[in-house]
Amino acid sequence: MKTELCERFGIEVPIFGFSHAVEVVAAVTNAGGYGVYGATRRLAEEITDEVAQIRAAVGERPFGLDLVIPNKVPEKNDRAELEKLVPEAHRRFIDGLETKYAVPKPSEPGMRTRFIRSEEIQDSQIAAVAESDVNMVALGIGCPPEVVKLMKSKGKTTVALVGQERHAARALEAGVDLLVAQGYDAGGHTGQVGTFSLVPRIVDMAGSVPVLAAGGVATGRHIAAALTLGAQGVWIGTAFLMTEEYRPHLSEGEMDALLNAQATDTVISRAESGKPFRQTRSAWSEEWTLPDAPAPLSHPLHDVLVGDILGAIIEHDIRPLQHYGAGQGIGWFDRLRPVSEVMNTLVREGDLALARSYQFSGETA
Amino acid sequence: MKTELCERFGIEVPIFGFSHAVEVVAAVTNAGGYGVYGATRRLAEEITDEVAQIRAAVGERPFGLDLVIPNKVPEKNDRAELEKLVPEAHRRFIDGLETKYAVPKPSEPGMRTRFIRSEEIQDSQIAAVAESDVNMVALGIGCPPEVVKLMKSKGKTTVALVGQERHAARALEAGVDLLVAQGYDAGGHTGQVGTFSLVPRIVDMAGSVPVLAAGGVATGRHIAAALTLGAQGVWIGTAFLMTEEYRPHLSEGEMDALLNAQATDTVISRAESGKPFRQTRSAWSEEWTLPDAPAPLSHPLHDVLVGDILGAIIEHDIRPLQHYGAGQGIGWFDRLRPVSEVMNTLVREGDLALARSYQFSGETA
Repeated sequence: MKTELCERFGIEVPIFGFSHAVEVVAAVTNAGGYGVYGATRRLAEEITDEVAQIRAAVGERPFGLDLVIPNKVPEKNDRAELEKLVPEAHRRFIDGLETKYAVPKPSEPGMRTRFIRSEEIQDSQIAAVAESDVNMVALGIGCPPEVVKLMKSKGKTTVALVGQERHAARALEAGVDLLVAQGYDAGGHTGQVGTFSLVPRIVDMAGSVPVLAAGGVATGRHIAAALTLGAQGVWIGTAFLMTEEYRPHLSEGEMDALLNAQATDTVISRAESGKPFRQTRSAWSEEWTLPDAPAPLSHPLHDVLVGDILGAIIEHDIRPLQHYGAGQGIGWFDRLRPVSEVMNTLVREGDLALARSYQFSGETA
Repeated sequence: MKTELCERFGIEVPIFGFSHAVEVVAAVTNAGGYGVYGATRRLAEEITDEVAQIRAAVGERPFGLDLVIPNKVPEKNDRAELEKLVPEAHRRFIDGLETKYAVPKPSEPGMRTRFIRSEEIQDSQIAAVAESDVNMVALGIGCPPEVVKLMKSKGKTTVALVGQERHAARALEAGVDLLVAQGYDAGGHTGQVGTFSLVPRIVDMAGSVPVLAAGGVATGRHIAAALTLGAQGVWIGTAFLMTEEYRPHLSEGEMDALLNAQATDTVISRAESGKPFRQTRSAWSEEWTLPDAPAPLSHPLHDVLVGDILGAIIEHDIRPLQHYGAGQGIGWFDRLRPVSEVMNTLVREGDLALARSYQFSGETA
């Protein structure tokens, strides 16, 4: 399975693997793909350290790092000031959930939401990334032209995730090297246009800028279909959750939620971060849809509200509320495998699907 | 562009074209595809007549017909009884819209919703279809085993549209000959699983029963990708709205809404029929999402509530409220073409995409 992008980026197969675990990122890269570390909830010094860890594991092979840079965040990371902005009704709603589901307080309040996204934090993250030797920087939300310019000046490949044509236009204008067309089927923060509908639209807009397909890419057939739609590769997250390398990063409850979920068991909810976020359906997502529930707050204020209870749900294993970000491909994954096996399976099946599709063409005659 | 399904069903290309217009159905069939007439809002005697019209236009080529058969409908078509079930708050909401947008009463009340779906109506539709010489019967919603059995005993191909695995299991149990995996990207009544994510899941469940992909199929690349995902063909609706043959069936306002829409301009709303229905976004869909709006009623009661105002919106050309059922492929269509040209373009581009995809395969080496 080869596309032009492989040679250009020095990889063997056009599979980009996103993960919040350095072990998974390294394993994807070492399996011939392009590992991408989701670093957006990491502090600058942690980013520096983790990039060094991945580099040590992969040698000269390329890997990337993903940040989200929303337009509007507070200037300073002043939690006390932000706490004042949380409406009383929202506090009462969270208190009600704690009572209803018997959720104790977390042992370390503020642990899960160690920082609230602010300009200050973002600037320090960006500086750490720019100074690191990571090969690629992906922007999961937002695409400030000055960040693209900075990263390019440091010799890094720049990538933007886009969920609609308007976002793609902005990212192309900012000069990114690669677009990820991420459809509604995706896990985590995502948009409203189905992957199948989105990918060829973005491909046609992008001209000579290559496009990766994201959102529901779970099998080699999906990769073959993505290339057929005009993408030059794929961006995968969900498949790498159900791996031996990722296991230490999941609670028992999170793992069970993921292993048992089908596509129809995922739901897009603003209850996680204030922005639409696909996750496994749980009492957490459902409670926020009940008639008396308040609307989630905006991001990042919502983080201030829910950080402690989300941390406590995991710490104290409150099963009905446990959930995890995952895409509509989740139904394909019902056991833990090593990352290398996931990669090999994807490539083998993708090659077969591509070879097979030729037979349908009228061009064979 | 050929799959096994072509020989089995006596068609030249594996493209099924759904339309509410007999002219479009005939044109799809005459272009080598399989036209399917959406007959669910037609009375039995109209169905008999329209099937005869299509037959006269296509000769011995095959064509189909689509009905929806929801589980729970009233026994009799007693409109007066149903009117009593509409809550006062819903009446007031509709009155409010009539005032706000200056919508006059329709010249013929009851015209658009000439009948409310009932067992009585459904039985007469089913009998008319069974006695007609239509080649295929597709069930858009619901899949009663006795209907499948009846249609098969009449020598007709039976098809079920499914939006999730549970529906597919039921349809396979009922013994259908063909499944349509219709994803979230689709126009009209649709589900929550993206087309890209849904298709290969249904293919794997269906075993030897062939599967068509539906929902966002707008270009030949989409067809090639659908075949790569394991489908044996595609089911297309939206592309045939923007055709010369369909033009007489649209108001000016509906046509403009369709011609100007992008994927992000469509929205799934229960405001049309009481069931989730993707349509172009308009004041109609948006008004039902405002904080004070009531929740749409269940189907078919919702039809009783909204039939007259929806008829009047079209009759009196109330632009902000005009809309039309369409999928996320709508952005590809910005001018009217003959059906034959739409078909030729799809086939030509599909063949090229299939031929091209082979080059990516590692199997070539």
